[in-house]
Amino acid sequence: MAEFLNSINKIILILEYDGRRYHGFQWQANAPTVQAELEQAIEKVTGENLRVIAASRTDAGVHATGQVVSFRTSSRLSAQTLARALNYYLPEDIAVKGACQADADFNVRRHALSREYEYRIITSRSRLPLAQGSAYIVPYELNIKEMNKACELLKGKHDFASFAAALRPLRDTVREVYEARVTSEGHLHTFYMVANSFLPHQVRNTVGLLIRLGIEKVGLDKFRHIMEAKKPGLAGPAAPARGLCLTKVNYPIDLEFAI
Amino acid sequence: MAEFLNSINKIILILEYDGRRYHGFQWQANAPTVQAELEQAIEKVTGENLRVIAASRTDAGVHATGQVVSFRTSSRLSAQTLARALNYYLPEDIAVKGACQADADFNVRRHALSREYEYRIITSRSRLPLAQGSAYIVPYELNIKEMNKACELLKGKHDFASFAAALRPLRDTVREVYEARVTSEGHLHTFYMVANSFLPHQVRNTVGLLIRLGIEKVGLDKFRHIMEAKKPGLAGPAAPARGLCLTKVNYPIDLEFAI
Repeated sequence: MAEFLNSINKIILILEYDGRRYHGFQWQANAPTVQAELEQAIEKVTGENLRVIAASRTDAGVHATGQVVSFRTSSRLSAQTLARALNYYLPEDIAVKGACQADADFNVRRHALSREYEYRIITSRSRLPLAQGSAYIVPYELNIKEMNKACELLKGKHDFASFAAALRPLRDTVREVYEARVTSEGHLHTFYMVANSFLPHQVRNTVGLLIRLGIEKVGLDKFRHIMEAKKPGLAGPAAPARGLCLTKVNYPIDLEFAI
Repeated sequence: MAEFLNSINKIILILEYDGRRYHGFQWQANAPTVQAELEQAIEKVTGENLRVIAASRTDAGVHATGQVVSFRTSSRLSAQTLARALNYYLPEDIAVKGACQADADFNVRRHALSREYEYRIITSRSRLPLAQGSAYIVPYELNIKEMNKACELLKGKHDFASFAAALRPLRDTVREVYEARVTSEGHLHTFYMVANSFLPHQVRNTVGLLIRLGIEKVGLDKFRHIMEAKKPGLAGPAAPARGLCLTKVNYPIDLEFAI
């Protein structure tokens, strides 16, 4: 029995996916999800019907370049061999970028110190077919300086209830934001946000409110007022999913992904 | 009769498209092409069944951010209004980015001084779902310094027969290359090439040979030898279309595109 337990390995994967075809990461009964594709591929490689855990449950349409997932397997394949085999079975729009083994008690969700997200906005009066799959095209100029002033207000430990989806009541809406800023490269403006964890729709509602500020429909005072009201649904409207990407999950230990 | 002639306008459009769904720019009987989509949209807006002319006939799968096309219309709509109306009817993966009016004798193909192309290569051992639609993922390191030495050989007026597709004999294979270089940003390597005009498959065959050089399968001497042999099909193999993008067409006059 001890031998049987020892023969189970905890595998950690880092994933990139184009979220457009998926109803989010998490398994759903009647819709394609990243989790379902990954679990199917794992079953093809190992013969095991198992559940994976993700560091961050990305929403429908949201992309990832650094999603982290884990699963336990009795397969004797090395993490790298497993990764390459999974890539063979995964669809074109999902890829394993690296894999490693971890201690049995390592939990990709609970042990994550922070998550990093990027939201890409392009200011353009015309559609941009090559960019529009991974960015939100906004047909007016944005006051990036003012948006960065609002970003300063977001930093630190706050009750972000106003930035949560109005759908479901949450027990605890306090989060700690380590970084929030907008950087520009020509017409491409990237909002970068790092927090210990995020409320549902928090980044997209933040971007929605930042854009209202950037086009000068609301001022910094109103931004502060919305933040302090702590009322779900007040921020937003949620910016479209296609601009959002989970780029990194940070842990207290260095995970040495290889492929 | 004079009035009738005066009422015909020459319209110039600048187009962006994601080439993945199309069998190239040029009209084909039984395959979707950018030209067919554009001519259909024009017919919906103006009621006219006409032919457009493009500055560069991009191949199947090749993208554009700066394709230039022209057509003659008796529509009284302004160029900008036409552009916005066309965008309403064009599919998601083709967009008019700007429009202007030009003299009746302006020819987007004959009057072009040069065309600019970019080819994006990413060196990565794993697939990259978010990048692979607009880049060629190469699973080994490239010697970019050596590739840039070869780029120097390409500059100037040369007979580029070895870089032409082997398919069809060409009368004149001399072209003048104004710029050729590879720039790197992390794992993204962009090959940039400007010439008065290009032979069929010239950029993709050039990239194919540059990659063989970058992975040290051929040396600079062999590169020079292939170039001097002037034999269609010697360079290559053609790098995949998805990495290639027509970025700009230059004219002796400034076309003031607006939308």
